[in-house]
Amino acid sequence: MATNSVKLLGTWACPYVYRVEIALKMKSIEYEFIQERVFNKSELLLKSNPVYKKIPVLFHDEKPICESLVILQYIDEAWLNGPSILPSDPYDRAIARFWAAYIDEKWYPLVADYRNVEGKEAKAAMVERISEGTLLLEEAFIDMSKGKSYCGGDSIGYVDIVFGSLLGWVKVIEIVDELKILDETKTPSLAEWDEKFCSDNVVKSIIPQAEKLVEVYHKYVELKKANSS
Amino acid sequence: MATNSVKLLGTWACPYVYRVEIALKMKSIEYEFIQERVFNKSELLLKSNPVYKKIPVLFHDEKPICESLVILQYIDEAWLNGPSILPSDPYDRAIARFWAAYIDEKWYPLVADYRNVEGKEAKAAMVERISEGTLLLEEAFIDMSKGKSYCGGDSIGYVDIVFGSLLGWVKVIEIVDELKILDETKTPSLAEWDEKFCSDNVVKSIIPQAEKLVEVYHKYVELKKANSS
Repeated sequence: MATNSVKLLGTWACPYVYRVEIALKMKSIEYEFIQERVFNKSELLLKSNPVYKKIPVLFHDEKPICESLVILQYIDEAWLNGPSILPSDPYDRAIARFWAAYIDEKWYPLVADYRNVEGKEAKAAMVERISEGTLLLEEAFIDMSKGKSYCGGDSIGYVDIVFGSLLGWVKVIEIVDELKILDETKTPSLAEWDEKFCSDNVVKSIIPQAEKLVEVYHKYVELKKANSS
Repeated sequence: MATNSVKLLGTWACPYVYRVEIALKMKSIEYEFIQERVFNKSELLLKSNPVYKKIPVLFHDEKPICESLVILQYIDEAWLNGPSILPSDPYDRAIARFWAAYIDEKWYPLVADYRNVEGKEAKAAMVERISEGTLLLEEAFIDMSKGKSYCGGDSIGYVDIVFGSLLGWVKVIEIVDELKILDETKTPSLAEWDEKFCSDNVVKSIIPQAEKLVEVYHKYVELKKANSS
């Protein structure tokens, strides 16, 4: 068994994979990227994540770790060098875990589900629910950042990674579905945070521009059609 | 502001509240129990958990912490005395977090939803899905316990608390819906684990017997009817 071997099974366009890459790069951990197939899951994926069969999977010395929030916390605990991902104070850590779970379990599912909602009224109601959630996040981000740039303080932290990794695809949804989610007038702090986050060198090196992701999205839709026909 | 004041907002029959109580008692932390109303949520709850409006809420020096999995980790990190709740090894911690999330997000929702499924075939399919999940947990518990009594080793740990706290209500569902979930022949390790867990002194002092919970369940159904009529 290799010592300190770090491998990441993922695809190029998956926001949950971006999370792991950002954390690894923040901590200057070298890793091998193993490209997973978009359709027809690999044996490696099925074997290493039999419960969910989903990327990302991080392999540390060949041992698999699944689920991006679990992986982020693992990286923070297994590599103590480099900037911390979670805050050091237990209460701040609890607040960070609370909002990370909220983003994954409540907010993003609403955004991702928007296109499946049919009818003008139902769509308007969904926009209202998304806006309420985004406003909650606006306030939470103000509280967590305590006057600094990020929820993690001066450098990017747990909630920044969790939320920020989704923004590429949020922007795709904004473009494709003609929906405004991050709004300079309604959520000015989040809009400002977004600009800072996206101009970070590590983030820039990992998350593609929204226009690029829109291309990927259209290609994916075509491939999916071809694959199912 | 009081120093080291610990209060827990909950109800007597909530499995998520049991989790927090088990963790607090394991660490010998004294706390005041504030009884939440079953119907018509209190101002304190609405103010301290405005996002989910759900119990349990732990107040440490008046600062609220919500969501039982977040609270368990908070207790472990804020009080370093007493037995650890999460394992010390980062990989074991990741595995524990993975299964805790699986239990809450996948397994228990299936069990709790069983009664809402209509039709013999659909019910049989649901039983099959629950059994598959329970078998996954059987294997996971064997791996995590590494030949010891609990997933936490010789004493009760994170996954033990997360799973064990639900078992009172799982048994109510078994009785009321005539369904067998923990089965000595199909999941012998979990059945053995269940016996050890339920005979633990801390657990016994917190989780009521299934028969008592069945009474509570029938009273709740009556009250709900009366409240909505």
